[in-house]
Amino acid sequence: MTTATQPLDPESLRKLDAWWRAANYLSVGQIYLYDNPLLKEPLALSHIKPRLLGHWGTTPGLSFIYVHLNRVIKEHDLSLIYVTGPGHGGPALVANAYLEGTYSEVYPNISRDEEGMRRLFKQFSFPGGIPSHVAPETPGSINEGGELGYALSHAFGAVFDNPELIAACVVGDGEAETGPMATSWHSNKFLNPIHDGAVLPILHLNGYKIAGPTVLARIPRDELEALFQGYGYAPHIVEGDDPMAMHQLMAATLDTVVAEIQRIQNDARAFGFQTRPRWPMIILRSPKGWTGPESVDGKATEGTFRSHQVPMANMTEPGHLGILEDWLKRYRAEELFDATGRLNADIAALAPQGERRMSANPHANGGLLLHDLRMPDFRDHAVDVPRPGGVEAEATRVQGRFIRDLMRLNPHNFRVFSPDETASNRWGAVFEVTDRCSVAEIVPGDEHVGPDGRVMEMLSEHQCEGWLEGYLLTGRHGFFSCYEAFIHIIDSMFNQHAKWLKVCDDIPWRRPIASLNYLLSSHVWRQDHNGFSHQDPGFIDHVINKKAKVIRVYLPPDANTLLSVTDHCLRSRNYVNVIVAGKQPAPQWLDMDAAIKHCTAGIGIWPWASNDQDGEPEVVMACAGDVPTLETLAAVALLHEHFPELKIRVINVVDLMKLQPPSEHPHGLSDADFDLLFTTNKPIIFAYHGYPWLIHRLTYRRTNHHNLHVRGYKEEGTTSTPFDTVIKNALDRFDLVADVIDRVPRLGPQAAYAKQAIRDKLIEHKHYITEKGEDMPEIRDWKWLP
Amino acid sequence: MTTATQPLDPESLRKLDAWWRAANYLSVGQIYLYDNPLLKEPLALSHIKPRLLGHWGTTPGLSFIYVHLNRVIKEHDLSLIYVTGPGHGGPALVANAYLEGTYSEVYPNISRDEEGMRRLFKQFSFPGGIPSHVAPETPGSINEGGELGYALSHAFGAVFDNPELIAACVVGDGEAETGPMATSWHSNKFLNPIHDGAVLPILHLNGYKIAGPTVLARIPRDELEALFQGYGYAPHIVEGDDPMAMHQLMAATLDTVVAEIQRIQNDARAFGFQTRPRWPMIILRSPKGWTGPESVDGKATEGTFRSHQVPMANMTEPGHLGILEDWLKRYRAEELFDATGRLNADIAALAPQGERRMSANPHANGGLLLHDLRMPDFRDHAVDVPRPGGVEAEATRVQGRFIRDLMRLNPHNFRVFSPDETASNRWGAVFEVTDRCSVAEIVPGDEHVGPDGRVMEMLSEHQCEGWLEGYLLTGRHGFFSCYEAFIHIIDSMFNQHAKWLKVCDDIPWRRPIASLNYLLSSHVWRQDHNGFSHQDPGFIDHVINKKAKVIRVYLPPDANTLLSVTDHCLRSRNYVNVIVAGKQPAPQWLDMDAAIKHCTAGIGIWPWASNDQDGEPEVVMACAGDVPTLETLAAVALLHEHFPELKIRVINVVDLMKLQPPSEHPHGLSDADFDLLFTTNKPIIFAYHGYPWLIHRLTYRRTNHHNLHVRGYKEEGTTSTPFDTVIKNALDRFDLVADVIDRVPRLGPQAAYAKQAIRDKLIEHKHYITEKGEDMPEIRDWKWLP
Repeated sequence: MTTATQPLDPESLRKLDAWWRAANYLSVGQIYLYDNPLLKEPLALSHIKPRLLGHWGTTPGLSFIYVHLNRVIKEHDLSLIYVTGPGHGGPALVANAYLEGTYSEVYPNISRDEEGMRRLFKQFSFPGGIPSHVAPETPGSINEGGELGYALSHAFGAVFDNPELIAACVVGDGEAETGPMATSWHSNKFLNPIHDGAVLPILHLNGYKIAGPTVLARIPRDELEALFQGYGYAPHIVEGDDPMAMHQLMAATLDTVVAEIQRIQNDARAFGFQTRPRWPMIILRSPKGWTGPESVDGKATEGTFRSHQVPMANMTEPGHLGILEDWLKRYRAEELFDATGRLNADIAALAPQGERRMSANPHANGGLLLHDLRMPDFRDHAVDVPRPGGVEAEATRVQGRFIRDLMRLNPHNFRVFSPDETASNRWGAVFEVTDRCSVAEIVPGDEHVGPDGRVMEMLSEHQCEGWLEGYLLTGRHGFFSCYEAFIHIIDSMFNQHAKWLKVCDDIPWRRPIASLNYLLSSHVWRQDHNGFSHQDPGFIDHVINKKAKVIRVYLPPDANTLLSVTDHCLRSRNYVNVIVAGKQPAPQWLDMDAAIKHCTAGIGIWPWASNDQDGEPEVVMACAGDVPTLETLAAVALLHEHFPELKIRVINVVDLMKLQPPSEHPHGLSDADFDLLFTTNKPIIFAYHGYPWLIHRLTYRRTNHHNLHVRGYKEEGTTSTPFDTVIKNALDRFDLVADVIDRVPRLGPQAAYAKQAIRDKLIEHKHYITEKGEDMPEIRDWKWLP
Repeated sequence: MTTATQPLDPESLRKLDAWWRAANYLSVGQIYLYDNPLLKEPLALSHIKPRLLGHWGTTPGLSFIYVHLNRVIKEHDLSLIYVTGPGHGGPALVANAYLEGTYSEVYPNISRDEEGMRRLFKQFSFPGGIPSHVAPETPGSINEGGELGYALSHAFGAVFDNPELIAACVVGDGEAETGPMATSWHSNKFLNPIHDGAVLPILHLNGYKIAGPTVLARIPRDELEALFQGYGYAPHIVEGDDPMAMHQLMAATLDTVVAEIQRIQNDARAFGFQTRPRWPMIILRSPKGWTGPESVDGKATEGTFRSHQVPMANMTEPGHLGILEDWLKRYRAEELFDATGRLNADIAALAPQGERRMSANPHANGGLLLHDLRMPDFRDHAVDVPRPGGVEAEATRVQGRFIRDLMRLNPHNFRVFSPDETASNRWGAVFEVTDRCSVAEIVPGDEHVGPDGRVMEMLSEHQCEGWLEGYLLTGRHGFFSCYEAFIHIIDSMFNQHAKWLKVCDDIPWRRPIASLNYLLSSHVWRQDHNGFSHQDPGFIDHVINKKAKVIRVYLPPDANTLLSVTDHCLRSRNYVNVIVAGKQPAPQWLDMDAAIKHCTAGIGIWPWASNDQDGEPEVVMACAGDVPTLETLAAVALLHEHFPELKIRVINVVDLMKLQPPSEHPHGLSDADFDLLFTTNKPIIFAYHGYPWLIHRLTYRRTNHHNLHVRGYKEEGTTSTPFDTVIKNALDRFDLVADVIDRVPRLGPQAAYAKQAIRDKLIEHKHYITEKGEDMPEIRDWKWLP
């Protein structure tokens, strides 16, 4: 007989515990065993791996949760994925996937028999094998277990627009100390119970990090409960160390919380959204290294930080081999596996079937579920450009209208993510078709805020990135709109996602997912009122350190090129696309046909701005980015005025990776093509959006590199006018002209006169700016006159 | 008569409100006025700045808090600093510093008269003037108001070891959504009421960010209170919009919380530390843009997001000039300033005196209080190196002993900060003299944890960085010990600190502070068990984009060089020093004398490893970093064996900035010196710790750059052996030998034979590693044999 507090009958309890023992056995085996997987022989040093590398501490708790989730999945036919915050407990997730059969399905070599088990053990954290953490190689995972802090954001991202999905998200108490995790609990203010699924957070308090105690394990229970009530949850505590009591308690708690999740969803779906629900969460307090050796070398181990990695790291120490053998034998593998190493059928029957297995849930291999976006025609938003420089437009505002149409056509699988910068980055048009998402209180005066909103704004770049990653990894599409400087806040999250994509490329069963798209605006050159602290164009430098095959960087110089690039990025797969574009009114250069052609090439001569058509240029003026393009063209105009005979070639770069050799990046120009564009011996003045040395780093192997002179941002700025900012960094038209004069010796005596005129002009401009507080009209109203 | 809930008598109330009005008047003036500061003439468009750039929304709330803090400072003679989370409210802090007189003391041009006020207004967010945010230029600030999230960490860092100091820290509700802020509330578990000061957090709920509502303003009051109770605070709510009622409420609340802070401190200081106190905090809910225009163009403005920046941004719109004039006049400046523009004496008397003024508190200009560290002799920890490669040591373990001695000698002004990696990075020796800091619960089994601990460990790189910055900015010293890959988590925080240092360099009244020192260990080459997710050596790339004058990067190859570099960094000022070093047992190359000489030069030929003494080398083998140095020397040994006649020069680089030209970095070698070392025409094989293209970026201007071939990390890795990791990235000794063979044509037919032998060797190694799970003994036990 079972009760609400003792929901497991003896037979269920026995089987549940048996699965847990099996998972723990397989975990210890992975960490330690090179051979003798079923302990058919007495354990000897030769059966132990030479290097013991893994994390035991969190592992038994992860498996405990796993088997209990399986029970409710089967009971309620749930679609559930397991997001493993403490992903260094890799052995647990691998063990459970193996017990469920998924592992052998995707890796047939790791068969469900003694030989398979031997290989399962050996491959773990072994050269040529698998990582010690939960990783892309782990079936059922969308969260790398390397860097900590993002599990809960990933989990929420996964269930947005997935009403039938539940993401059970285990949060380690170490990870809970990170900033990104601390704010991600607030994701519940952005989850709509009608068209989103549910997240079940399970805070796993096992008390220690690598060496020190954790914060949340050392505050009184009333504070702990208040904290999670304050975050808006209904916490349920599962605490203890006796396995049988803990099984009953965990089962009873899961019954309660699953019922509560279903009640919340059914209410909202039957009667409409009323008010933000108080979703349940679980606090599981169990010993670190639970069921492991109580003590090693006389020092307490189970329940302490000494269980964090490998409890006995040096197996040649006297007694250690015996401790390991006892430990393994306590799981009574002979009751779990038959003589061939196969899991006994009655225990195996605990696993859900097919795609209900968490290790085989297709949401954790999002490419399986990915649909192409329905694409509006970006040409419909073309800015009419009768002649280069003839009109002004705000590039990202035009892009925003395209994104609006996209959101209209794709109301269930595309979202925008931004730290409160959607409007500021000029994507306001999207609010014609959707709102900012919030299920928290809405008051009169709020604009474009609602529970059905598909613009995800929280002032946390970490949240935006984490949500978006979770959304993409489960097979949907999105865009991150951010201030350029502050995208560095998620440098490390980007690292992890780029690494994930790189690894997935070599895993055939992982299907391609939509690219991670960044719009970086409010960029370095237009921090008129935010100044120096908001100036950093270095995300590009950071991004291109990652594997070339997953990285793309675009610097469209105007609205039509931005539209073309945006369309391209939205259709791509498995990349990280970084687009840097301006939001301020700026001259437009290319009509739509020219823009498409230019973006398709990624780099090209602008013939209408060049006068070298009848032969070799005397100087190449290259540019990448909207402000450098403007200054370059203004410099060219000045040069035409001062030196009408001077042959100038203007090259604009949209796709930065074109500059690299093809050996370094698949987009790279061949040396022959590069030389055709940049010549092999003429001076090149390159005006670049970001830190100038990046251009050298991309081109150092090119023939004409020694003639390359790059201007860019060199960390000079404050709140000032746009033109003052380019002057401060010597990227302005006058300095570019001076650079040309310095490098074309044949200009002769005329050059000195021109340089003096330019110097005078600069002084005049600086004076005007400091006195009047704005740029001279000739800068503000400058038009390209071909 | 006054009461506990109405503590202000009418006269005090009048004066307090007058100060607030004066601050608000000066704030609006800064945002709008180009001239006519005292409104002696009717307001005209010519009095308005051409570009209106600033943030009004948060400003009145910041000044409201300011004047109330002044009241309790005077009442209790407190030493208090003001940490401005919503630092875009720059006008408020500038206005209050001006009212206090400090501003005119540090900037005599901004005098306390009409002309000074005119300049004060004009300079704000104006070319050649001051930034719109709280910035280094703002007296009394230690927290740049650009990027959000770090105010509370800075505040706690400021009061560690400053028992008499209180940091009042205003946290905006936008900033409160960031991850770093969300976890920094837990800093109260690390604050000792005996030898640390106090932080008074003031959460300023004004409801909106740039455009959207804030999370914490939209949760019910019981949740809000539970959240901060859960964080361990006693929250006090101050809520309303009627100024007079709010003055009484704020004054009463401040009386309560100051008394509570003093009670906590007195108790602990009289009776010893008992248990973690429940420190008070304030939640101030006031309208955004309080006292500003109620509506503009028919749209509600005060109390909405429309107050965030400049309420009327286009002053040529009909009616806007009138709204501004009414707004300014409502502050009744004629009651506040005399005809010469000087603040009336009775109001001025509200300000505390001298260094008690928050704008003049020396703790906010930490260099004023900075003392040199008492330095132990690092030579005492020298590893005895009878001959190069003759002994092994763990470099960071040796360094940890030096840090231990340093902590012993400097028990009040030096701390170590680490995300739970002090022991893992092998600094365990420090626990001989101190503990991990925690004032939370301590249980049996904890090791080296205590309320007096000076090792600050929380699993949040953000917290560690923020605390350390706050500690340094208030005139103390510290070290951040971190895993190399995860230091990217604070990329953006580093940006802001580096920018702060760069700006301070040009502010004469800001005194130099101790450098921000990073030890990055557990580095890319030794992620034997953490694998790919833990491999990223790109922080160096990120760091050197900042101004050369504040950036230093060191890659000491062994323990003695690490000691020498550490000593140097701890004595430096106003830099960011990045030290990358290994923690694993590794061969030692230099005895202490040689190490000091080598580190002083920063780069040099290692003659004992070179055989070109009698002339020009045929190849230069350069290296930077411990693992690249090992592989380079192993390659040299192989080359000596295969090609005894080959003249090889070995160069080791400790100070990476030596590679840049002196025009780019003050440490840069002259071209002549560089050419002497690297030759002008011989092949250079450079084995580098990080991403290889960085070396090209540093050296692209050098004569012999076209002969430079760099090996480094190219994003290939997983959990594997150390040697397998270098093989995967072609940084191993065999690949280096092959590189040399490819580039020294004269080696002739012998070369083909050697290359085949090397290829065979590599296959043999890979096979052994995959089979046995460890490196071959010849790698593990390799010794340099000169």
